[in-house]
Amino acid sequence: MFKELTPAPEWDVDQWFNSSAPISIASLRGKVIVAGAFQMLCPGCVSHLIPQLKSVRALFPEDKVAVIGLHTVFEHHEAMGPASLKAFLHEYRVPFPVGVDKPSGSSDPSPLTMRRYRMRGTPTLLLIDADGNLRSQTFGHVPDLQLGAEISFLLQERDILARADNGEGAAQNAGCDDSACAVN
Amino acid sequence: MFKELTPAPEWDVDQWFNSSAPISIASLRGKVIVAGAFQMLCPGCVSHLIPQLKSVRALFPEDKVAVIGLHTVFEHHEAMGPASLKAFLHEYRVPFPVGVDKPSGSSDPSPLTMRRYRMRGTPTLLLIDADGNLRSQTFGHVPDLQLGAEISFLLQERDILARADNGEGAAQNAGCDDSACAVN
Amino acid sequence: MFKELTPAPEWDVDQWFNSSAPISIASLRGKVIVAGAFQMLCPGCVSHLIPQLKSVRALFPEDKVAVIGLHTVFEHHEAMGPASLKAFLHEYRVPFPVGVDKPSGSSDPSPLTMRRYRMRGTPTLLLIDADGNLRSQTFGHVPDLQLGAEISFLLQERDILARADNGEGAAQNAGCDDSACAVN
Amino acid sequence: MFKELTPAPEWDVDQWFNSSAPISIASLRGKVIVAGAFQMLCPGCVSHLIPQLKSVRALFPEDKVAVIGLHTVFEHHEAMGPASLKAFLHEYRVPFPVGVDKPSGSSDPSPLTMRRYRMRGTPTLLLIDADGNLRSQTFGHVPDLQLGAEISFLLQERDILARADNGEGAAQNAGCDDSACAVN
Repeated sequence: MFKELTPAPEWDVDQWFNSSAPISIASLRGKVIVAGAFQMLCPGCVSHLIPQLKSVRALFPEDKVAVIGLHTVFEHHEAMGPASLKAFLHEYRVPFPVGVDKPSGSSDPSPLTMRRYRMRGTPTLLLIDADGNLRSQTFGHVPDLQLGAEISFLLQERDILARADNGEGAAQNAGCDDSACAVN
Repeated sequence: MFKELTPAPEWDVDQWFNSSAPISIASLRGKVIVAGAFQMLCPGCVSHLIPQLKSVRALFPEDKVAVIGLHTVFEHHEAMGPASLKAFLHEYRVPFPVGVDKPSGSSDPSPLTMRRYRMRGTPTLLLIDADGNLRSQTFGHVPDLQLGAEISFLLQERDILARADNGEGAAQNAGCDDSACAVN
Repeated sequence: MFKELTPAPEWDVDQWFNSSAPISIASLRGKVIVAGAFQMLCPGCVSHLIPQLKSVRALFPEDKVAVIGLHTVFEHHEAMGPASLKAFLHEYRVPFPVGVDKPSGSSDPSPLTMRRYRMRGTPTLLLIDADGNLRSQTFGHVPDLQLGAEISFLLQERDILARADNGEGAAQNAGCDDSACAVN
Repeated sequence: MFKELTPAPEWDVDQWFNSSAPISIASLRGKVIVAGAFQMLCPGCVSHLIPQLKSVRALFPEDKVAVIGLHTVFEHHEAMGPASLKAFLHEYRVPFPVGVDKPSGSSDPSPLTMRRYRMRGTPTLLLIDADGNLRSQTFGHVPDLQLGAEISFLLQERDILARADNGEGAAQNAGCDDSACAVN
């Protein structure tokens, strides 16, 4: 993860699916954010990232972990418009909010959020902590074991900060019941 | 995980492979222990547990996470003796220590450690925290995403306790560099 | 396979990709035809049928086996138009000809070829022999082992008929060199 | 496949499992033989060859295709004796006959059948036609699509020879009902 904490750039999204209202990073403050940038016709996204994001959604509680898809189309724009994306999300039973990254409006085929994060392509996975800092950004596939460990790290770190803010010592409160990733 | 912390029963092992000396739970104090009970002829163990334990060994640092195999033979004893196990470990390139659970010496086909933990069969995955408490025990397959989260939880909890012992506040020290599961 | 040989209905295709000219069943006479009806946003088609058709294309010689895709869109029409299909075929590196099944032009959402074959959905696999007879039609997934056996059956049957037409006995010509599925 | 037909060397088997009587290649005359040479502690054998042989057994009729396992142990002999093999076959639910390749009795660790076939290791797949000729021998993994095609080829070739022996023309008898690999 990044040595210095840097705020995650706000995303620039035109349109949301699976959400009744726009979603900003700021509006998710207090939750760990697992955001996957994908294209609906990118084979690696379809076979690995989308199923992984669905697993994250199923495993971690919604009040602590937000799962977000970002449709960052940088090629074949005519084939991956909102109507196509809507059908894709339906057919692949994607349950989490997905935002359409805003086209650049210039000759650059990459959309705005993608450029802001200097993403190299899709799939790209972003981990943003509960304070809105970008903690990791990975182009390609992150193994489940590693992703689970990273999310859990950010969740527990958050709990520690919360307790510290309350003037409580960490050691006394480190019981398992506070875990976000309940077991057995 | 268990609401109340209970010490993990010490295992009762006859013979070790991939280790020059006997290993006890007590001797691993200070490390999170991921222990997998298996039989070399149990299909689910071979196809899921063993590869998973190898992935855990590859991802987490050895000075913080111990990965241990326990050969808990409760059937076909004549087919899974130490010579067979040795060949199995070689052919499947198992790099972590594996202990042979001690036969009961009675008419009970289940070996001693297996009985002590009241395991229902193989594979069984044990998570033991750095203080030697049994934090979870699962019969069957634990998904990688969940296992990664659980190990990370126990690792960070340990770091918190360590810092508290040092009289340091948690909040100030919650930087990413202390993470056992380094990212990017 | 069907007890009685019935001619495969000609397909009704608007537009072809990966082919410089229209392709009809009649024009493929003399080849065994493996035709897969799919939708680009049907998960089972993407994960199983398309890779399987690519494997068939790679294994069997082009002068004996024709592999054809039929884009039989019966839902989400707005999301799976020709521009979308073109991008899909590019991203998934589909090397064989794919025809767009002609819309019914009526209130029936199913296209003409799909209706003519009374397909129940996608994926559907058609096997058509070298004389243009429909020999099997399967909705869902056909295991590779079975599909390989069926194609080989139709290939060899064809060879037998060819030899019989030449007035040659089968036994003398049943050497392995005539096999379409060369081995080692 | 081999250009010239060569008789498959008879195997040299000490002991059979899943068979009440010894099985020779000669005794299987009239059937296509799919024989897999494996070691119970060979990872590639366990993950690919054994499941594939089980699929072949399930797909093709027993009166036309014989599926045989050969336990060709050339390393770790002490770990893969008959008692171990028996437990392995039970745990992995292997339904077809498995013969134990006879040890060489010399300093050569490879058993007799393995040497006779000059096998390079395990897994090795043998295809033997209904007349006892060795038609292919492959070290490593054969894809299902290819194996299905090869078995079907040998089955149909057999049917042709049978018909020719009866003085019947092939063309008239090439109906689908004679197929060994029934479809739909």
